[in-house]
Amino acid sequence: MRIGELGRETGVAVPTIKFYVREGLLPAGRLTSPNQASYDESHVRRLRLIRGLIDVGGLSVAAVREVLAAVDTPGGAVHKVLGAAHDAITPVPPGRPEGLPQARRTVAELIRRRGWLAEEDHPAAEAMAVALAAFQDLGQGAFVEVLDDYAEACERIADADLAYVGRHADVEELVESVVVGTVLGDAVLTALRRLAHVDRSARRYEGYGEGRPAAGGGADEGMEKGGADPSRVVPPSV
Amino acid sequence: MRIGELGRETGVAVPTIKFYVREGLLPAGRLTSPNQASYDESHVRRLRLIRGLIDVGGLSVAAVREVLAAVDTPGGAVHKVLGAAHDAITPVPPGRPEGLPQARRTVAELIRRRGWLAEEDHPAAEAMAVALAAFQDLGQGAFVEVLDDYAEACERIADADLAYVGRHADVEELVESVVVGTVLGDAVLTALRRLAHVDRSARRYEGYGEGRPAAGGGADEGMEKGGADPSRVVPPSV
Repeated sequence: MRIGELGRETGVAVPTIKFYVREGLLPAGRLTSPNQASYDESHVRRLRLIRGLIDVGGLSVAAVREVLAAVDTPGGAVHKVLGAAHDAITPVPPGRPEGLPQARRTVAELIRRRGWLAEEDHPAAEAMAVALAAFQDLGQGAFVEVLDDYAEACERIADADLAYVGRHADVEELVESVVVGTVLGDAVLTALRRLAHVDRSARRYEGYGEGRPAAGGGADEGMEKGGADPSRVVPPSV
Repeated sequence: MRIGELGRETGVAVPTIKFYVREGLLPAGRLTSPNQASYDESHVRRLRLIRGLIDVGGLSVAAVREVLAAVDTPGGAVHKVLGAAHDAITPVPPGRPEGLPQARRTVAELIRRRGWLAEEDHPAAEAMAVALAAFQDLGQGAFVEVLDDYAEACERIADADLAYVGRHADVEELVESVVVGTVLGDAVLTALRRLAHVDRSARRYEGYGEGRPAAGGGADEGMEKGGADPSRVVPPSV
Protein backbone atom coordinates (compact mmCIF):
# COMPACT_ATOMS: atom_id res chain seq x y z
CA MET A 1 0.00 0.00 0.00
CA ARG A 2 1.05 3.62 -0.45
CA ILE A 3 1.75 5.93 2.45
CA GLY A 4 -1.66 7.59 2.17
CA GLU A 5 -3.41 4.26 2.60
CA LEU A 6 -1.14 3.39 5.53
CA GLY A 7 -2.22 6.68 7.10
CA ARG A 8 -5.91 5.98 6.57
CA GLU A 9 -5.59 2.42 7.86
CA THR A 10 -3.94 3.53 11.10
CA GLY A 11 -5.36 7.01 11.56
CA VAL A 12 -1.88 8.52 11.60
CA ALA A 13 -1.18 11.65 9.51
CA VAL A 14 1.25 11.18 6.62
CA PRO A 15 3.74 13.81 7.86
CA THR A 16 3.77 11.98 11.21
CA ILE A 17 4.49 8.68 9.46
CA LYS A 18 7.38 10.34 7.62
CA PHE A 19 8.65 11.71 10.92
CA TYR A 20 8.64 8.22 12.46
CA VAL A 21 10.59 6.89 9.46
CA ARG A 22 13.15 9.70 9.78
CA GLU A 23 13.44 9.05 13.52
CA GLY A 24 14.07 5.38 12.91
CA LEU A 25 10.93 4.12 14.65
CA LEU A 26 9.28 2.80 11.49
CA PRO A 27 11.19 0.97 8.74
CA ALA A 28 11.13 2.81 5.41
CA GLY A 29 8.78 1.44 2.78
CA ARG A 30 10.08 -0.54 -0.20
CA LEU A 31 10.90 1.92 -2.98
CA THR A 32 8.77 1.26 -6.06
CA SER A 33 9.94 4.38 -7.89
CA PRO A 34 12.40 7.15 -6.99
CA ASN A 35 9.78 9.03 -5.00
CA GLN A 36 7.24 6.39 -4.10
CA ALA A 37 7.38 3.67 -1.47
CA SER A 38 5.20 0.70 -0.70
CA TYR A 39 4.16 -0.36 2.80
CA ASP A 40 2.70 -3.61 4.09
CA GLU A 41 0.94 -5.11 7.10
CA SER A 42 4.14 -5.11 9.14
CA HIS A 43 4.11 -1.31 8.87
CA VAL A 44 0.48 -1.15 9.98
CA ARG A 45 1.29 -3.28 13.01
CA ARG A 46 4.42 -1.34 13.90
CA LEU A 47 2.66 1.99 13.48
CA ARG A 48 -0.12 0.88 15.84
CA LEU A 49 2.51 -0.19 18.36
CA ILE A 50 4.24 3.20 18.12
CA ARG A 51 0.96 5.06 18.61
CA GLY A 52 -0.02 2.88 21.53
CA LEU A 53 3.29 3.51 23.26
CA ILE A 54 3.16 7.26 22.63
CA ASP A 55 -0.56 8.05 23.00
CA VAL A 56 -1.60 5.64 25.72
CA GLY A 57 1.73 4.83 27.34
CA GLY A 58 2.90 8.44 27.26
CA LEU A 59 6.39 7.41 26.11
CA SER A 60 8.73 9.86 24.42
CA VAL A 61 9.97 9.24 20.89
CA ALA A 62 13.39 8.42 22.36
CA ALA A 63 11.90 5.86 24.76
CA VAL A 64 9.88 4.29 21.95
CA ARG A 65 13.09 3.96 19.93
CA GLU A 66 14.75 2.05 22.80
CA VAL A 67 11.73 -0.18 23.31
CA LEU A 68 11.53 -1.04 19.63
CA ALA A 69 15.23 -1.82 19.59
CA ALA A 70 14.58 -4.36 22.36
CA VAL A 71 11.57 -5.75 20.51
CA ASP A 72 13.65 -6.13 17.33
CA THR A 73 16.68 -7.74 18.97
CA PRO A 74 16.85 -11.15 17.37
CA GLY A 75 17.54 -14.19 19.50
CA GLY A 76 18.98 -13.60 22.94
CA ALA A 77 17.60 -15.09 26.13
CA VAL A 78 13.96 -14.16 26.57
CA HIS A 79 14.67 -12.95 30.07
CA LYS A 80 17.46 -10.62 28.88
CA VAL A 81 15.32 -9.12 26.12
CA LEU A 82 12.49 -8.59 28.56
CA GLY A 83 14.96 -6.90 30.87
CA ALA A 84 16.09 -4.54 28.12
CA ALA A 85 12.50 -3.66 27.29
CA HIS A 86 11.73 -3.09 30.94
CA ASP A 87 14.73 -0.84 31.38
CA ALA A 88 13.82 1.24 28.36
CA ILE A 89 10.27 1.91 29.50
CA THR A 90 11.09 2.73 33.09
CA PRO A 91 11.78 6.44 33.19
CA VAL A 92 13.88 7.57 36.11
CA PRO A 93 12.57 11.01 37.07
CA PRO A 94 15.06 13.87 36.85
CA GLY A 95 14.57 14.97 40.45
CA ARG A 96 17.08 13.92 43.11
CA PRO A 97 15.22 14.37 46.36
CA GLU A 98 17.13 14.59 49.62
CA GLY A 99 15.95 11.33 51.11
CA LEU A 100 17.11 9.23 48.17
CA PRO A 101 19.75 7.10 49.96
CA GLN A 102 17.27 6.11 52.67
CA ALA A 103 14.58 5.45 50.04
CA ARG A 104 16.98 3.18 48.14
CA ARG A 105 17.53 1.15 51.30
CA THR A 106 13.76 0.89 51.77
CA VAL A 107 13.38 -0.47 48.25
CA ALA A 108 16.26 -2.92 48.67
CA GLU A 109 14.73 -4.18 51.92
CA LEU A 110 11.36 -4.64 50.24
CA ILE A 111 12.92 -6.64 47.40
CA ARG A 112 14.70 -8.87 49.93
CA ARG A 113 11.63 -9.20 52.14
CA ARG A 114 9.49 -10.33 49.19
CA GLY A 115 12.22 -12.65 47.94
CA TRP A 116 12.02 -11.02 44.52
CA LEU A 117 14.56 -12.00 41.90
CA ALA A 118 15.24 -8.40 40.96
CA GLU A 119 18.38 -6.35 41.23
CA GLU A 120 18.40 -3.56 43.77
CA ASP A 121 19.70 -1.15 41.15
CA HIS A 122 17.13 -2.08 38.52
CA PRO A 123 15.79 1.11 36.86
CA ALA A 124 12.35 0.39 38.30
CA ALA A 125 13.86 0.14 41.79
CA GLU A 126 15.53 3.50 41.25
CA ALA A 127 12.31 5.05 39.93
CA MET A 128 10.53 3.74 42.99
CA ALA A 129 13.19 5.13 45.32
CA VAL A 130 12.84 8.56 43.73
CA ALA A 131 9.06 8.45 44.22
CA LEU A 132 9.44 7.36 47.87
CA ALA A 133 11.94 10.12 48.51
CA ALA A 134 9.46 12.61 47.04
CA PHE A 135 6.81 11.31 49.46
CA GLN A 136 9.29 11.89 52.26
CA ASP A 137 10.03 15.44 51.05
CA LEU A 138 6.31 16.17 51.12
CA GLY A 139 6.01 15.08 54.73
CA GLN A 140 4.41 11.75 53.84
CA GLY A 141 7.23 9.38 54.62
CA ALA A 142 4.69 7.13 56.37
CA PHE A 143 3.57 6.00 52.92
CA VAL A 144 6.10 3.18 53.26
CA GLU A 145 3.51 1.55 55.54
CA VAL A 146 1.47 0.51 52.51
CA LEU A 147 4.35 -0.85 50.44
CA ASP A 148 3.74 -4.47 51.30
CA ASP A 149 0.08 -4.13 50.34
CA TYR A 150 1.21 -2.66 47.04
CA ALA A 151 3.81 -5.36 46.56
CA GLU A 152 1.32 -8.17 47.20
CA ALA A 153 -1.12 -6.60 44.77
CA CYS A 154 1.67 -6.33 42.19
CA GLU A 155 2.62 -9.98 42.65
CA ARG A 156 -0.94 -10.92 41.86
CA ILE A 157 -0.95 -8.64 38.82
CA ALA A 158 2.39 -9.95 37.58
CA ASP A 159 1.16 -13.54 37.95
CA ALA A 160 -1.95 -12.67 35.92
CA ASP A 161 0.19 -10.88 33.31
CA LEU A 162 2.64 -13.75 32.92
CA ALA A 163 -0.17 -16.30 32.73
CA TYR A 164 -1.82 -14.16 30.06
CA VAL A 165 1.40 -13.93 28.07
CA GLY A 166 1.92 -17.67 28.45
CA ARG A 167 -1.58 -18.38 27.15
CA HIS A 168 -1.49 -16.05 24.18
CA ALA A 169 1.92 -15.24 22.85
CA ASP A 170 4.20 -17.49 20.87
CA VAL A 171 7.88 -16.79 21.38
CA GLU A 172 8.19 -14.61 18.29
CA GLU A 173 5.73 -12.02 19.48
CA LEU A 174 6.47 -12.55 23.17
CA VAL A 175 8.54 -9.42 23.59
CA GLU A 176 6.11 -7.17 21.75
CA SER A 177 3.33 -8.64 23.83
CA VAL A 178 5.18 -7.91 27.05
CA VAL A 179 6.04 -4.38 25.97
CA VAL A 180 2.43 -3.66 25.06
CA GLY A 181 1.20 -5.29 28.24
CA THR A 182 3.64 -3.36 30.37
CA VAL A 183 3.07 0.07 28.89
CA LEU A 184 -0.65 -0.11 28.17
CA GLY A 185 -1.14 -2.25 31.27
CA ASP A 186 0.25 0.62 33.36
CA ALA A 187 -2.41 2.87 31.87
CA VAL A 188 -5.13 0.33 32.69
CA LEU A 189 -3.76 -0.18 36.19
CA THR A 190 -3.54 3.49 37.16
CA ALA A 191 -7.03 4.08 35.75
CA LEU A 192 -8.40 1.13 37.73
CA ARG A 193 -6.67 2.27 40.90
CA ARG A 194 -8.37 5.62 40.44
CA LEU A 195 -11.79 4.05 39.94
CA ALA A 196 -11.26 1.91 43.02
CA HIS A 197 -10.35 5.10 44.92
CA VAL A 198 -13.55 6.74 43.72
CA ASP A 199 -15.50 3.76 44.99
CA ARG A 200 -13.69 3.53 48.31
CA SER A 201 -13.85 7.25 49.03
CA ALA A 202 -17.55 7.36 48.09
CA ARG A 203 -18.16 4.61 50.63
CA ARG A 204 -16.02 6.21 53.28
CA TYR A 205 -16.71 9.91 52.92
CA GLU A 206 -20.27 9.78 51.65
CA GLY A 207 -21.25 7.33 54.31
CA TYR A 208 -22.18 4.38 52.08
CA GLY A 209 -21.17 1.00 53.32
CA GLU A 210 -19.96 2.47 56.57
CA GLY A 211 -19.29 0.08 59.38
CA ARG A 212 -18.76 -2.77 57.02
CA PRO A 213 -15.50 -3.53 55.28
CA ALA A 214 -15.68 -2.56 51.62
CA ALA A 215 -13.30 -5.31 50.49
CA GLY A 216 -14.36 -7.55 47.62
CA GLY A 217 -16.43 -6.36 44.70
CA GLY A 218 -20.12 -6.57 44.15
CA ALA A 219 -20.88 -7.26 47.78
CA ASP A 220 -23.80 -4.91 47.82
CA GLU A 221 -26.69 -5.60 45.50
CA GLY A 222 -28.48 -2.46 46.57
CA MET A 223 -25.62 -0.27 45.43
CA GLU A 224 -25.18 -2.13 42.19
CA LYS A 225 -28.78 -1.60 41.26
CA GLY A 226 -28.64 2.02 42.31
CA GLY A 227 -26.15 2.87 39.58
CA ALA A 228 -22.60 4.01 39.69
CA ASP A 229 -22.82 7.69 40.60
CA PRO A 230 -22.66 8.06 44.37
CA SER A 231 -24.62 11.31 44.23
CA ARG A 232 -27.47 9.47 42.52
CA VAL A 233 -27.20 6.22 44.42
CA VAL A 234 -30.14 5.09 46.50
CA PRO A 235 -28.69 4.25 49.90
CA PRO A 236 -28.68 0.52 50.44
CA SER A 237 -31.87 -0.59 52.10
CA VAL A 238 -30.10 -3.10 54.32
CA MET B 1 13.17 34.13 53.15
CA ARG B 2 14.29 35.54 49.83
CA ILE B 3 13.80 33.75 46.54
CA GLY B 4 17.43 32.56 46.46
CA GLU B 5 17.01 30.84 49.82
CA LEU B 6 13.73 29.30 48.69
CA GLY B 7 15.59 27.92 45.70
CA ARG B 8 18.40 26.46 47.83
CA GLU B 9 15.92 24.97 50.31
CA THR B 10 13.97 23.17 47.58
CA GLY B 11 16.64 22.59 44.95
CA VAL B 12 14.61 24.51 42.37
CA ALA B 13 16.36 27.11 40.19
CA VAL B 14 15.27 30.72 40.73
CA PRO B 15 14.12 31.27 37.11
CA THR B 16 11.98 28.14 37.46
CA ILE B 17 10.43 29.49 40.66
CA LYS B 18 9.62 32.74 38.85
CA PHE B 19 8.08 30.73 36.02
CA TYR B 20 5.82 28.88 38.47
CA VAL B 21 4.72 32.20 39.97
CA ARG B 22 3.94 33.61 36.50
CA GLU B 23 2.04 30.43 35.62
CA GLY B 24 -0.05 30.73 38.76
CA LEU B 25 1.20 27.51 40.37
CA LEU B 26 3.00 29.21 43.24
CA PRO B 27 1.61 32.24 45.10
CA ALA B 28 3.77 35.34 44.74
CA GLY B 29 5.92 36.25 47.71
CA ARG B 30 5.03 39.14 50.00
CA LEU B 31 6.59 42.29 48.59
CA THR B 32 9.08 43.80 51.04
CA SER B 33 10.34 46.41 48.60
CA PRO B 34 9.42 47.29 44.99
CA ASN B 35 11.66 44.56 43.60
CA GLN B 36 12.07 42.14 46.48
CA ALA B 37 9.68 39.54 47.82
CA SER B 38 9.66 37.36 50.90
CA TYR B 39 8.70 33.70 50.94
CA ASP B 40 7.78 31.39 53.79
CA GLU B 41 7.34 27.72 54.68
CA SER B 42 4.06 27.54 52.75
CA HIS B 43 6.04 28.31 49.59
CA VAL B 44 8.58 25.60 50.38
CA ARG B 45 5.80 23.08 50.83
CA ARG B 46 3.94 24.14 47.71
CA LEU B 47 7.11 24.13 45.62
CA ARG B 48 7.90 20.58 46.75
CA LEU B 49 4.39 19.54 45.81
CA ILE B 50 4.77 21.11 42.35
CA ARG B 51 8.09 19.36 41.78
CA GLY B 52 6.74 16.03 42.97
CA LEU B 53 3.79 16.27 40.60
CA ILE B 54 5.96 17.30 37.65
CA ASP B 55 9.15 15.28 38.20
CA VAL B 56 7.79 12.08 39.68
CA GLY B 57 4.18 12.20 38.57
CA GLY B 58 5.05 13.36 35.08
CA LEU B 59 2.22 15.91 35.09
CA SER B 60 2.18 18.88 32.74
CA VAL B 61 2.19 22.43 34.09
CA ALA B 62 -1.46 22.72 33.01
CA ALA B 63 -2.40 19.54 34.88
CA VAL B 64 -0.56 20.74 37.98
CA ARG B 65 -2.52 24.00 37.80
CA GLU B 66 -5.81 22.05 37.81
CA VAL B 67 -4.72 19.80 40.64
CA LEU B 68 -3.63 22.74 42.78
CA ALA B 69 -6.94 24.48 42.09
CA ALA B 70 -8.68 21.39 43.51
CA VAL B 71 -6.31 21.32 46.48
CA ASP B 72 -6.98 25.00 47.17
CA THR B 73 -10.76 24.84 46.84
CA PRO B 74 -12.00 25.80 50.29
CA GLY B 75 -14.82 23.85 51.88
CA GLY B 76 -16.91 21.65 49.63
CA ALA B 77 -17.68 18.01 50.28
CA VAL B 78 -14.51 15.98 50.66
CA HIS B 79 -15.77 13.51 48.09
CA LYS B 80 -16.40 16.24 45.51
CA VAL B 81 -12.97 17.80 45.99
CA LEU B 82 -11.35 14.38 45.69
CA GLY B 83 -13.34 13.85 42.51
CA ALA B 84 -12.08 17.13 41.06
CA ALA B 85 -8.49 16.22 41.92
CA HIS B 86 -8.93 12.77 40.40
CA ASP B 87 -10.37 14.21 37.22
CA ALA B 88 -7.53 16.68 36.85
CA ILE B 89 -4.81 14.08 37.18
CA THR B 90 -6.37 11.50 34.89
CA PRO B 91 -5.14 12.32 31.42
CA VAL B 92 -7.32 10.99 28.64
CA PRO B 93 -4.96 10.06 25.83
CA PRO B 94 -5.43 11.89 22.53
CA GLY B 95 -5.82 8.72 20.47
CA ARG B 96 -9.29 7.52 19.51
CA PRO B 97 -8.79 3.87 18.63
CA GLU B 98 -11.40 2.05 16.59
CA GLY B 99 -12.60 -0.30 19.27
CA LEU B 100 -13.47 2.47 21.72
CA PRO B 101 -17.26 1.92 21.94
CA GLN B 102 -16.77 -1.78 22.72
CA ALA B 103 -14.00 -0.95 25.20
CA ARG B 104 -16.31 1.52 26.97
CA ARG B 105 -18.90 -1.23 27.37
CA THR B 106 -16.21 -3.53 28.80
CA VAL B 107 -15.28 -0.90 31.39
CA ALA B 108 -18.92 -0.22 32.28
CA GLU B 109 -19.51 -3.95 32.75
CA LEU B 110 -16.45 -4.22 34.98
CA ILE B 111 -17.64 -1.32 37.14
CA ARG B 112 -21.06 -2.96 37.50
CA ARG B 113 -19.59 -6.39 38.11
CA ARG B 114 -17.38 -5.09 40.92
CA GLY B 115 -20.21 -3.02 42.37
CA TRP B 116 -18.02 0.07 42.27
CA LEU B 117 -19.55 3.40 43.12
CA ALA B 118 -18.00 5.10 40.11
CA GLU B 119 -19.58 6.71 37.10
CA GLU B 120 -19.15 4.95 33.80
CA ASP B 121 -18.04 8.20 32.19
CA HIS B 122 -15.50 9.09 34.88
CA PRO B 123 -12.28 10.33 33.24
CA ALA B 124 -10.43 7.30 34.60
CA ALA B 125 -13.02 5.00 33.00
CA GLU B 126 -12.51 6.79 29.70
CA ALA B 127 -8.71 6.57 30.02
CA MET B 128 -9.05 2.87 30.71
CA ALA B 129 -11.33 2.37 27.70
CA VAL B 130 -8.80 4.10 25.45
CA ALA B 131 -6.04 1.80 26.74
CA LEU B 132 -8.19 -1.32 26.24
CA ALA B 133 -9.07 -0.23 22.72
CA ALA B 134 -5.35 0.20 22.02
CA PHE B 135 -4.76 -3.37 23.24
CA GLN B 136 -7.47 -4.48 20.82
CA ASP B 137 -5.89 -2.54 17.93
CA LEU B 138 -2.61 -4.30 18.64
CA GLY B 139 -4.22 -7.72 18.39
CA GLN B 140 -4.26 -8.22 22.16
CA GLY B 141 -7.94 -7.89 22.89
CA ALA B 142 -7.66 -10.97 25.11
CA PHE B 143 -6.07 -8.71 27.73
CA VAL B 144 -9.58 -8.20 29.11
CA GLU B 145 -9.15 -11.67 30.66
CA VAL B 146 -6.93 -10.21 33.37
CA LEU B 147 -9.13 -7.22 34.21
CA ASP B 148 -10.73 -8.82 37.25
CA ASP B 149 -7.31 -9.72 38.63
CA TYR B 150 -6.27 -6.12 38.15
CA ALA B 151 -9.48 -4.85 39.69
CA GLU B 152 -9.11 -7.04 42.78
CA ALA B 153 -5.52 -5.89 43.19
CA CYS B 154 -6.66 -2.28 42.87
CA GLU B 155 -9.36 -2.76 45.48
CA ARG B 156 -6.72 -3.96 47.87
CA ILE B 157 -4.49 -1.01 47.01
CA ALA B 158 -7.34 1.49 47.36
CA ASP B 159 -8.23 0.03 50.76
CA ALA B 160 -4.61 0.39 51.86
CA ASP B 161 -4.48 3.94 50.48
CA LEU B 162 -7.68 5.05 52.19
CA ALA B 163 -6.64 3.46 55.47
CA TYR B 164 -3.30 5.28 55.19
CA VAL B 165 -5.02 8.58 54.53
CA GLY B 166 -7.40 7.94 57.41
CA ARG B 167 -4.50 7.25 59.77
CA HIS B 168 -2.34 10.19 58.82
CA ALA B 169 -4.17 13.12 57.35
CA ASP B 170 -6.34 15.59 59.13
CA VAL B 171 -9.11 17.06 57.00
CA GLU B 172 -7.19 20.19 56.13
CA GLU B 173 -4.40 18.37 54.38
CA LEU B 174 -6.57 15.48 53.24
CA VAL B 175 -6.83 16.61 49.65
CA GLU B 176 -3.14 17.35 49.28
CA SER B 177 -2.41 13.97 50.81
CA VAL B 178 -4.69 12.21 48.35
CA VAL B 179 -3.25 14.09 45.39
CA VAL B 180 0.27 13.22 46.43
CA GLY B 181 -0.69 9.65 47.13
CA THR B 182 -2.46 9.29 43.83
CA VAL B 183 0.21 10.80 41.61
CA LEU B 184 3.33 9.56 43.39
CA GLY B 185 1.55 6.34 44.30
CA ASP B 186 1.07 5.66 40.57
CA ALA B 187 4.83 5.98 40.14
CA VAL B 188 5.45 3.56 43.01
CA LEU B 189 2.83 1.15 41.72
CA THR B 190 4.10 0.97 38.15
CA ALA B 191 7.66 0.56 39.40
CA LEU B 192 6.59 -2.26 41.74
CA ARG B 193 4.62 -3.96 38.98
CA ARG B 194 7.78 -3.88 36.90
CA LEU B 195 9.89 -5.37 39.66
CA ALA B 196 7.30 -8.08 40.19
CA HIS B 197 7.45 -8.80 36.45
CA VAL B 198 11.20 -9.07 36.64
CA ASP B 199 10.85 -11.58 39.45
CA ARG B 200 8.09 -13.60 37.80
CA SER B 201 9.76 -13.73 34.40
CA ALA B 202 13.09 -14.71 35.98
CA ARG B 203 11.32 -17.60 37.66
CA ARG B 204 9.41 -18.59 34.56
CA TYR B 205 11.91 -18.07 31.75
CA GLU B 206 15.12 -18.76 33.62
CA GLY B 207 13.73 -21.92 35.10
CA TYR B 208 13.81 -20.93 38.75
CA GLY B 209 10.88 -22.01 40.82
CA GLU B 210 9.44 -23.95 37.92
CA GLY B 211 6.71 -26.40 38.66
CA ARG B 212 5.73 -24.52 41.76
CA PRO B 213 3.45 -21.53 41.80
CA ALA B 214 5.42 -18.36 42.42
CA ALA B 215 2.62 -16.64 44.33
CA GLY B 216 3.46 -15.03 47.65
CA GLY B 217 6.77 -13.40 48.37
CA GLY B 218 9.79 -14.87 50.04
CA ALA B 219 8.68 -18.44 49.52
CA ASP B 220 12.13 -19.55 48.58
CA GLU B 221 14.91 -19.13 51.07
CA GLY B 222 17.47 -20.39 48.62
CA MET B 223 16.70 -17.65 46.19
CA GLU B 224 16.68 -14.97 48.83
CA LYS B 225 20.13 -15.89 49.98
CA GLY B 226 21.37 -16.17 46.46
CA GLY B 227 20.87 -12.47 45.86
CA ALA B 228 18.58 -10.60 43.59
CA ASP B 229 20.17 -10.91 40.15
CA PRO B 230 18.86 -14.04 38.40
CA SER B 231 22.03 -14.34 36.35
CA ARG B 232 24.04 -14.54 39.55
CA VAL B 233 21.60 -16.57 41.58
CA VAL B 234 22.64 -19.95 42.85
CA PRO B 235 19.83 -22.32 41.88
CA PRO B 236 17.83 -23.33 44.93
CA SER B 237 19.22 -26.47 46.47
CA VAL B 238 15.78 -27.89 47.13
